[in-house]
Amino acid sequence: MASKARVLLVGSGGIGTIAAFNLEHGNLAQVSCVLRSNYAAVMQRGFEITSSDHGHIQSWRPTEILNAVPHFRGNGDRPFDYIVICTKNVPDVGPSLCQIIGPAVTSRHTVITLIQNGLNIERPFLLSFPDNIILSGVSRIDAHEVSPGVIEQKQKDNLHIGAFHNPKLDSDKQRRAAEEFVKIYRAGGNTTCLHEPDVARDRWSKLVYNATWNPICALTGVNTGDLRLTNCVIDDLLYPAMKEVLKVSQARGCLLPMSIIDETIHCDPVEEKVTPSMQKDLEKGNFIEHENILGEVIREARAAGVATPILSAIYALCSGIQWKTKKAKGLVDLAKNSDAI
Amino acid sequence: MASKARVLLVGSGGIGTIAAFNLEHGNLAQVSCVLRSNYAAVMQRGFEITSSDHGHIQSWRPTEILNAVPHFRGNGDRPFDYIVICTKNVPDVGPSLCQIIGPAVTSRHTVITLIQNGLNIERPFLLSFPDNIILSGVSRIDAHEVSPGVIEQKQKDNLHIGAFHNPKLDSDKQRRAAEEFVKIYRAGGNTTCLHEPDVARDRWSKLVYNATWNPICALTGVNTGDLRLTNCVIDDLLYPAMKEVLKVSQARGCLLPMSIIDETIHCDPVEEKVTPSMQKDLEKGNFIEHENILGEVIREARAAGVATPILSAIYALCSGIQWKTKKAKGLVDLAKNSDAI
Repeated sequence: MASKARVLLVGSGGIGTIAAFNLEHGNLAQVSCVLRSNYAAVMQRGFEITSSDHGHIQSWRPTEILNAVPHFRGNGDRPFDYIVICTKNVPDVGPSLCQIIGPAVTSRHTVITLIQNGLNIERPFLLSFPDNIILSGVSRIDAHEVSPGVIEQKQKDNLHIGAFHNPKLDSDKQRRAAEEFVKIYRAGGNTTCLHEPDVARDRWSKLVYNATWNPICALTGVNTGDLRLTNCVIDDLLYPAMKEVLKVSQARGCLLPMSIIDETIHCDPVEEKVTPSMQKDLEKGNFIEHENILGEVIREARAAGVATPILSAIYALCSGIQWKTKKAKGLVDLAKNSDAI
Repeated sequence: MASKARVLLVGSGGIGTIAAFNLEHGNLAQVSCVLRSNYAAVMQRGFEITSSDHGHIQSWRPTEILNAVPHFRGNGDRPFDYIVICTKNVPDVGPSLCQIIGPAVTSRHTVITLIQNGLNIERPFLLSFPDNIILSGVSRIDAHEVSPGVIEQKQKDNLHIGAFHNPKLDSDKQRRAAEEFVKIYRAGGNTTCLHEPDVARDRWSKLVYNATWNPICALTGVNTGDLRLTNCVIDDLLYPAMKEVLKVSQARGCLLPMSIIDETIHCDPVEEKVTPSMQKDLEKGNFIEHENILGEVIREARAAGVATPILSAIYALCSGIQWKTKKAKGLVDLAKNSDAI
């Protein structure tokens, strides 16, 4: 690319802001960040980033700070080469992400990168943007926005990028798009971003953590380090729940080694006391991402005829909690005796 | 009995106070209530009771108000004919109820009545007081202490009494003790108290509710009426969890009809929005009674070789929550890397 890639990044919280920073840092991209809750704070003071990769950065600003997704009208404007989505993924609460980014997408041109958790998250994008390349981003990073515009990245960045298979498009072209994104992201140095062509395996691997630690910590209100002090929760719940994830992934053609269970349980030092994102969301009264990290696993299990009694129980409890949050936000019609979830 | 029966009642919250009132109301018993958190309030103003059975009663006082279990020394005092225990049952947090009531028990004389939830609650009593009759009380009443000394009883009283089988004692004598307790309780009129000799069946029947509605409402923070608006929680969690309870009860020799599931789901009008006791306890930061209403079911299932993946998952989540409460109350040694639950 002769000029810098033009990137629109939606969802500039912890992971999104670190991604925006990395993308600009190597001088191969210019990033327009769409902010919502932190817009005023960042307009005034920029981002304050404390990063295990980049140290302490005061008043960092991306090329452009926006408070809404821009309409690309084509009259002289450069189209977005990439749209990077780092928002929470809560498909059970509208409007959809496809609707939100729609006005900024240029058909056949914009590469859409989903740095988000869960399974089958590409499906609505492949339907809405059938002529665009959709990339998978699997981030293993403990980065959070601790107050508006203040980002803490405690673990080294570790981002895997690969193309979600779009049968309408040339495979090589999709692979090259993933490689190009990795090149831009890595140019800044001091960060780990890899091309991982086996997207399914990558996402199932992360689900071993996300479909289990996340809801179990959320439902108990106990972080990972503390839960590991309570043998019974680990042995009688976490471990068998992870085994169910492996059974489903295998039935869907992705054979993960049993050793991934112990690796995932012990991936952080016990002293680290990680509060998974779903527990954080619940504590803040936010919606939780249970549909893509649990619901889709259960739907895949059903399609494959695999029983998942533990994951199904946890999923139903999460659905109840989501209903409560909807009710608290006035989104439930209590007069209607039907499933409002 | 020539004179009134002498009753010591421990745990005068919602259910306990209604029991104390009913026992005294028929003039066949004099009740000494042991109070803790509400002692000062009741000493000053008596109980205020609003009851669907008895109407509004201001400043009711039992025969005696105590702030601790008395030591029975025998020198001229009348022994207690009955000790009625209506406290929460949290065996995983000491001291044990047997230790607490021990000083007031007269061997071979005092009949101990446990108006409490759960399975196998009689076991420690049969061990500690092998020569005493132990009665089971299964209460189906929505009675709560809304502030210290202020009791609301919203549903009609419905108490089942039967003897826990003590193999050392004469069966007829145990049956007669149950009948005598029922007679005293019913003497006041306007209340339902039945002799139910099949204690096991009685307790398993109530577990269909307690082992499922209780933890599911507690874990989601959603009451029964609201949960019934969310079809997925009822169909995919409550219903299969109740089926597991029935499977275990059958394996332990108690065949309950499948119809009990629908009856238990719909036992209250959907508008009633019942907050089960475990949800209330969690909201108040109190310990939960998961050991006797879930843990024992799972241990019975294991002994019978019955799989209970859903109940086991719910139980493990409850164990995590109990650990958190213990931690909040300073009862967990975090330096010790072992199961503190």
